[in-house]
Amino acid sequence: MSKLETVAQVGENEALKRTIARLNTSEHALVGPGDDSAVIASPDGRFTVTTDTLIEGHDFKLEWSSAYDLGWKAVASNIADVAAMGAVPTSLVVALTVPGHTEVTWLEHFADGLKAACVNLAPGCGVVGGDLAASDQVMISVAAHGSLEGREPVLRSGAQVGDILAVAGTLGRAAAGLALLQSGNRDAISAYDDLVNVQRRPNPPVKAGVEAAVAGATAMLDLSDGLARDSARIAKASNVTLQIDPLMLQGFEAVIEEAARAIDANPGDWVIGGGEDHSLLATFPADAKLPRAFKAIGVVLPQGPAPVMLGANPLPELGWDSSRAQNN
Amino acid sequence: MSKLETVAQVGENEALKRTIARLNTSEHALVGPGDDSAVIASPDGRFTVTTDTLIEGHDFKLEWSSAYDLGWKAVASNIADVAAMGAVPTSLVVALTVPGHTEVTWLEHFADGLKAACVNLAPGCGVVGGDLAASDQVMISVAAHGSLEGREPVLRSGAQVGDILAVAGTLGRAAAGLALLQSGNRDAISAYDDLVNVQRRPNPPVKAGVEAAVAGATAMLDLSDGLARDSARIAKASNVTLQIDPLMLQGFEAVIEEAARAIDANPGDWVIGGGEDHSLLATFPADAKLPRAFKAIGVVLPQGPAPVMLGANPLPELGWDSSRAQNN
Repeated sequence: MSKLETVAQVGENEALKRTIARLNTSEHALVGPGDDSAVIASPDGRFTVTTDTLIEGHDFKLEWSSAYDLGWKAVASNIADVAAMGAVPTSLVVALTVPGHTEVTWLEHFADGLKAACVNLAPGCGVVGGDLAASDQVMISVAAHGSLEGREPVLRSGAQVGDILAVAGTLGRAAAGLALLQSGNRDAISAYDDLVNVQRRPNPPVKAGVEAAVAGATAMLDLSDGLARDSARIAKASNVTLQIDPLMLQGFEAVIEEAARAIDANPGDWVIGGGEDHSLLATFPADAKLPRAFKAIGVVLPQGPAPVMLGANPLPELGWDSSRAQNN
Repeated sequence: MSKLETVAQVGENEALKRTIARLNTSEHALVGPGDDSAVIASPDGRFTVTTDTLIEGHDFKLEWSSAYDLGWKAVASNIADVAAMGAVPTSLVVALTVPGHTEVTWLEHFADGLKAACVNLAPGCGVVGGDLAASDQVMISVAAHGSLEGREPVLRSGAQVGDILAVAGTLGRAAAGLALLQSGNRDAISAYDDLVNVQRRPNPPVKAGVEAAVAGATAMLDLSDGLARDSARIAKASNVTLQIDPLMLQGFEAVIEEAARAIDANPGDWVIGGGEDHSLLATFPADAKLPRAFKAIGVVLPQGPAPVMLGANPLPELGWDSSRAQNN
């Protein structure tokens, strides 16, 4: 039965062949998988590139995330970094390492997750190259590419005093999901499976990235490490202070309050400190019309003693320490 | 003393900062490291992308390769795949995982190796993004990008009956180096350290890739798995049979014969089966002027019973089984 075949049994070449057969192609690929390199269209003469890695035990546990979940998450976490530049995701290359005893069906479900995330979050984007190898741990390393379509990239460094600070997407849901899983409270996990699913399969607001760029966003980033840490990154890169209005966070807290009560947690901590929703944080000129996906949560002030203020108080740079360092 | 500091002690962010400080930038980067994505110029509206991963225990041993060697090798093995399309390497993103007890100086030497390989093998190319994380094994995953400068990519599938088959670069040296290391014969390792160094720090003929494209190469690939396996890939993709002239391989054997004798090995096996020199195999029209870097080793015949013939005999697809599957 093919269900019981492992990667070691069928060989990595055959395993990879079956995996790739389940993927969608990129609409932007001029030469797809199968040669020494793929060739991708970049009509405006530029492309964006980012890389992010998920490691078993550090970024996920195999008992909490299915192969499908991991394929989805690997795509979502990378294309959020494409969207955060104001770019449209066009193509991915995926390096996967798995133990030899991994079943081939696991790889197939991983591929299904890659495909589903591309199709749902970034239509037209697809996997154009990959690498499969044996290792002790499951490790997924993705490089994602985007097209700026003639627009200027939206950097972290452009926030201007007087700008509005706004968020597209959810805050604290992925952290709530993680806390629920960590609680081991089965009833709560089942009752709030929508939050657990955000942790497993985040839904970054990819289109909102382009919308922000078009609307004149002056700075933007992907909230992968949480509002506190990531807002400080914009503040430092732009030499400003961001002031978040705590009233504007109440809506984000309200929807996770009940789950927090169920496991005796503080929903405010999740909203402020939780990463992995992969929402977008951006600044806009005061007279810009915010895209519908964005909700104002604060303003940009001249550089003060703290990079970020929550109301009148400095906001410590808490948040998700991913035990991960990234320079993009 | 900073020499004794480990990644776990200084934290991954600080470790990554120190590592990046030692890198060269890409001349093609419009936005370099530090934002959610880098932005790379692709003047002709296309870019090539490939990915390759090196895993401790499978692709290298830490007792045989220094951090510098691994940085070099990670760059070399990836830009060879760029060159094999006829493209100029422009930029790399590098995902690195190391155990927490790894010394920060190890990372710095790794960065030095990345930089040296870029500067020496592909001037103008640089690292534009990265990711550093803790894991049980050292794992290096690179995605490399190239510019076709308006030329058509040279695929594996374009070989035509009557074409000349030619190689740029060395054959069998990296395999000789590996065999020397595996032999444990210290005298031989020391006597033939030039071969050991090809294994540790391969020198792919990167510029020859562009020269081949300009000269009208009809098919090309990077010899990462050895002449036997990789020539069969061109043959199958092009629906032809490649006939290699054994006389034309004698020069490649001659330079490793002495090393082979020292450890009682067969130099012919290294030339035919050894990968990792990352030389280029290409086919050219019979009337093309071969670039100086290329040496003719055979001809392209109509598809016969075997994809590759060595003289009058079918050549089995031996070679380096990298326990690695790649679709580019």
